[in-house]
Amino acid sequence: MIVITSNKASEERIAEIVSHIEKHGVQAHISKGEDKTVIGIIGKADPKLAEQLRQMSGVEQVVKISKSYKLASRDFHPADSVIRIKDVEIGGQEIVIMGGPCAVESNDQIDEIARLVKASGAQVLRGGAFKPRTGPYSFQGIGIEGLEMMAEAGKKHGLLTITEVMTPEYVDVCAQYADILQVGTRNMQNFDLLRKLGTIQTPVLLKRGFSATYDEFLNAAEYILAGGNPNVMLCERGIRTFETYTRNTLDLAAIPALQTLSHLPVISDPSHGTGRRELVEPMSKASVAAGANGLIVEMHTDPDNSMTGDGVQSLFPDQFAKLMLDLEKLAPLVGRTFNTNKNYVFA
Amino acid sequence: MIVITSNKASEERIAEIVSHIEKHGVQAHISKGEDKTVIGIIGKADPKLAEQLRQMSGVEQVVKISKSYKLASRDFHPADSVIRIKDVEIGGQEIVIMGGPCAVESNDQIDEIARLVKASGAQVLRGGAFKPRTGPYSFQGIGIEGLEMMAEAGKKHGLLTITEVMTPEYVDVCAQYADILQVGTRNMQNFDLLRKLGTIQTPVLLKRGFSATYDEFLNAAEYILAGGNPNVMLCERGIRTFETYTRNTLDLAAIPALQTLSHLPVISDPSHGTGRRELVEPMSKASVAAGANGLIVEMHTDPDNSMTGDGVQSLFPDQFAKLMLDLEKLAPLVGRTFNTNKNYVFA
Amino acid sequence: MIVITSNKASEERIAEIVSHIEKHGVQAHISKGEDKTVIGIIGKADPKLAEQLRQMSGVEQVVKISKSYKLASRDFHPADSVIRIKDVEIGGQEIVIMGGPCAVESNDQIDEIARLVKASGAQVLRGGAFKPRTGPYSFQGIGIEGLEMMAEAGKKHGLLTITEVMTPEYVDVCAQYADILQVGTRNMQNFDLLRKLGTIQTPVLLKRGFSATYDEFLNAAEYILAGGNPNVMLCERGIRTFETYTRNTLDLAAIPALQTLSHLPVISDPSHGTGRRELVEPMSKASVAAGANGLIVEMHTDPDNSMTGDGVQSLFPDQFAKLMLDLEKLAPLVGRTFNTNKNYVFA
Amino acid sequence: MIVITSNKASEERIAEIVSHIEKHGVQAHISKGEDKTVIGIIGKADPKLAEQLRQMSGVEQVVKISKSYKLASRDFHPADSVIRIKDVEIGGQEIVIMGGPCAVESNDQIDEIARLVKASGAQVLRGGAFKPRTGPYSFQGIGIEGLEMMAEAGKKHGLLTITEVMTPEYVDVCAQYADILQVGTRNMQNFDLLRKLGTIQTPVLLKRGFSATYDEFLNAAEYILAGGNPNVMLCERGIRTFETYTRNTLDLAAIPALQTLSHLPVISDPSHGTGRRELVEPMSKASVAAGANGLIVEMHTDPDNSMTGDGVQSLFPDQFAKLMLDLEKLAPLVGRTFNTNKNYVFA
Repeated sequence: MIVITSNKASEERIAEIVSHIEKHGVQAHISKGEDKTVIGIIGKADPKLAEQLRQMSGVEQVVKISKSYKLASRDFHPADSVIRIKDVEIGGQEIVIMGGPCAVESNDQIDEIARLVKASGAQVLRGGAFKPRTGPYSFQGIGIEGLEMMAEAGKKHGLLTITEVMTPEYVDVCAQYADILQVGTRNMQNFDLLRKLGTIQTPVLLKRGFSATYDEFLNAAEYILAGGNPNVMLCERGIRTFETYTRNTLDLAAIPALQTLSHLPVISDPSHGTGRRELVEPMSKASVAAGANGLIVEMHTDPDNSMTGDGVQSLFPDQFAKLMLDLEKLAPLVGRTFNTNKNYVFA
Repeated sequence: MIVITSNKASEERIAEIVSHIEKHGVQAHISKGEDKTVIGIIGKADPKLAEQLRQMSGVEQVVKISKSYKLASRDFHPADSVIRIKDVEIGGQEIVIMGGPCAVESNDQIDEIARLVKASGAQVLRGGAFKPRTGPYSFQGIGIEGLEMMAEAGKKHGLLTITEVMTPEYVDVCAQYADILQVGTRNMQNFDLLRKLGTIQTPVLLKRGFSATYDEFLNAAEYILAGGNPNVMLCERGIRTFETYTRNTLDLAAIPALQTLSHLPVISDPSHGTGRRELVEPMSKASVAAGANGLIVEMHTDPDNSMTGDGVQSLFPDQFAKLMLDLEKLAPLVGRTFNTNKNYVFA
Repeated sequence: MIVITSNKASEERIAEIVSHIEKHGVQAHISKGEDKTVIGIIGKADPKLAEQLRQMSGVEQVVKISKSYKLASRDFHPADSVIRIKDVEIGGQEIVIMGGPCAVESNDQIDEIARLVKASGAQVLRGGAFKPRTGPYSFQGIGIEGLEMMAEAGKKHGLLTITEVMTPEYVDVCAQYADILQVGTRNMQNFDLLRKLGTIQTPVLLKRGFSATYDEFLNAAEYILAGGNPNVMLCERGIRTFETYTRNTLDLAAIPALQTLSHLPVISDPSHGTGRRELVEPMSKASVAAGANGLIVEMHTDPDNSMTGDGVQSLFPDQFAKLMLDLEKLAPLVGRTFNTNKNYVFA
Repeated sequence: MIVITSNKASEERIAEIVSHIEKHGVQAHISKGEDKTVIGIIGKADPKLAEQLRQMSGVEQVVKISKSYKLASRDFHPADSVIRIKDVEIGGQEIVIMGGPCAVESNDQIDEIARLVKASGAQVLRGGAFKPRTGPYSFQGIGIEGLEMMAEAGKKHGLLTITEVMTPEYVDVCAQYADILQVGTRNMQNFDLLRKLGTIQTPVLLKRGFSATYDEFLNAAEYILAGGNPNVMLCERGIRTFETYTRNTLDLAAIPALQTLSHLPVISDPSHGTGRRELVEPMSKASVAAGANGLIVEMHTDPDNSMTGDGVQSLFPDQFAKLMLDLEKLAPLVGRTFNTNKNYVFA
């Protein structure tokens, strides 16, 4: 940590700052410049110290030179983290695809979609039973019944399952039904939820908040890791900007950037990231080209009548299957493998 | 609701869209333009219908002409909502000030600050017992003990109290100790928390999310109102933008805008809204000039040694007391009153 | 300037970085931490050096500890800059109001508006002759003829005039007619225009770019100052964010922040800053309460038929005159004076 | 265009609005809903009408149903525009690569880089002679001499050349030396510059503004097209967001989105779009996978000593040549071809 004093800081004030630093059991290393004095802090400082220094008079800037997250950082864990769930490895050589509807609507719906997802070559079935919705009068998901339907469909068709959990008290029941638990963008900093997820071993797909920096995103992951659950995947799903043509702005540079900063697998969500069906295919390819470890993509057999509005970004089954074939060709060009075991029959 | 078809939509497709609309028990009113057809929907439509239409092929745009929130809207409740708590009215003539430290740290700290807050003319004591922190290794608040300390200080000095609640399971205990419950910016769309807050009658101060639009903000309030709790205050606390000099960008136009769209009181938070002590005073005055119903302002007797980093934005007691005197003069110029009963002694 | 090396930088690499620094005639002051080495640079470094260092391998971060602008900074010029134009002082005790239509449309229009602006107590007449418009098919202003009309109206009614200049080649002709030249938000980084404005002495009102940081804004002012024209005013006019209810997000914290960083007068534009007539009055008051040195406000006698779309944010004459009376009362509360010489007759 | 009245608009007010509309020679088609009246406007309306209506009392919303740009739109020109310059076609089957330094520094520098660019398989040499810089004290480019050096290097090595033009008065001289003129992000709405570029036939690469929407971007292109120059390429180069790890946020969804809305070629700039050398390669691949018609990439033989700070985002020659080989394999997977005529020798 480095403290830069303001032009006007007197010798006395600087001495007080140094004495404050040394009270925390770390060393202060002073370097006087033309206008300003720079104080380097050597040793492991209490995070509170930085915060206190920032607000002391005479201090102009405090520069952190080590990251605030540890377990999530590549420095701490140089090799890629690979999360193994049954026979699927996420974060390894293979690109993993998670496909399915925005919301589980009925037994027939999820069974038919699961069949198509499997036949296309995907490994994970996605589907929401509890839906976070902007307004209270929108469809909120069918709840535990939906979890049961999805678990059954996953089992029948040989797919892992992923579903969103919105509150700490539902973590256990969701973990009982699903293989991966998803934390939605609105809950990226729901710290009680993150803490609860740290107490189990079920893999977690953590979505980036609407306006979260990489640093905040990795700190959110750190909550889960610090609790004792090492199985965290990061998911880039678009950030909020001034552009309204797309639902969000999918920040694909986040993929290689997060892979540099962290060892955790990075999944891309081109469906929420664009909010437009016609952009899902190019952005899926772009995500793989940028190095994503996997994709989570919405697919629906009858998007016109889906129960949430997200049908507008859902692929039709033929589009989804076609995309899988294209990604299979793309994968080797970025040093990845792809599931070649498919049996989809185009309409 | 209005549906605008794309240039290429055929007569058949338009007929299908109309038939889809009419299946929902509402009327479709067709108006053919040069390139596009406009379909007006007359009657109360299911929210799902808009979402479905938006994703139908042949549809270019769906324009909502009524708002998605109802109970929060000024149309529904034309008069200002006034929330009465003991002898304080929020949303009425008087500007209400909430002051205190970021976090409750000890009995002595909160007692002394409460004394100064009261003497300055504020009506509400703020203080966090549960702190939402970006990283897991930062100070997280002292918990229920802090609630007790604050409740006692409030009682002793004749102040209402406000504290943040972060998770549904803590709502009841927090409501037992505090007069107002605060929902933080990170939790604005923690829907389970909002739903739980809808089941009690304790007033709620709902902070705007980092990147929430007014529409999303009012929809979040709607969750609480729809649950049966009418006592909701909105709090503008700055949004996230590209500017990093200030911690957030305090959007003061939100004050009159939200007061136009809604009947709920609007409180401004210049401390988090700027993150810089020297900006709190001008932004407090600007908030009152813009029509705020109240302010929530951080004040600390020893910000250099506060346990969170928010000391950097905390006023010193003398600054806080001086601000109260200035706001008292400002209030009548915007048709408001201010507490004249003060006994602060400047150092 | 401080250079922070990455964890992996070898001793050799650090030695190379130091040698690179010393080649520029400045001293390197090395301080070894646990993981990283910090190199402080002492002496006046060439701006290129920072840029080069930032891209050298082994360098993780380069922290500038002095600002890149000089003449615009408060450090360089501690007292407020006061710009005197005829009998008006901008940046001094008095709050200066600039009022008028978005565009000059005709002799009668500008004459009548000038009369009302003067009667309300404003000191400057605003009006566009050259209009920057998003699309080429919108009304682009009436050009030099408009400059003549406005100059005449200003002279007749005893008002200074301000108009926008869009390109270097029109600077001289605009300066011949108007007392103040305005650089629009889209041109804040039109460096050739800024350089040209540096060669004259006519005061310049520089509007903040849509997405310019304070640092970039002050660097843009620096171009004009460095050219030799000290008469620069900064204008906060709203920044672009995700919120679409308002046309822009008026960043009022910019007013005290820029006044801290710089000695230049700061003017607020609540008309473009909100894009909504009903928000102009509260945001004008808030701007004055935040410490603005002046306001630039749109007013039109017949906004329904104005030639640009900005009528939607124009006050009616009675609203404008009423606002002036309110601001007169507000000014002394923030230590300012206001023109009391008014003769407006309300309809 | 559709006008939606507010709840409170009286019958009389609606009649006045209708009469205002009909004065413009278009038809008003009225449709009464429960609370609001919707007025459809049939016929080609003057753009001013929309703007006037938006500001009339009683009007809540005005919805445009046709785009404000015409010549740039895909509706107007359904086939892709292909710009042919000598033997290079931009916007056709082949992916076109523009490579080179941020700034032309010397004859030797640009000659050596041109040789490497050509050997790697790129078709266009980039290099700035006039540099737009945030502050006035940074290196501003070497001017016309740089244009001469680059033209010569291009000629010698069989490369087209592209350079930035910053002001209308330099358009002619830049067009004399370079094959393509670039408009920088800060000048996207420098309308006089755009108008001047409309009067010549030299192809223009128009960079998206820091915070420009697709609609504003296409309107800026429309200025050039409407002036008579059909040779416009759009360049996505990253937008400004809250994330500071990357210099900008490269919005790759802009590539397919702009190709849907418009027929103009879309080029991606992963160098400015990320500002980090290590992200250029993945983002280049992602851009091609998303469907880009070309890339503009910075490459430098000695980035540590480049004269601008952009060396930090410049590839080394080996990285550039390796990227070209990778893109050659990627191109056919998205239906594109790539220059196979390369003779680069790796170090």
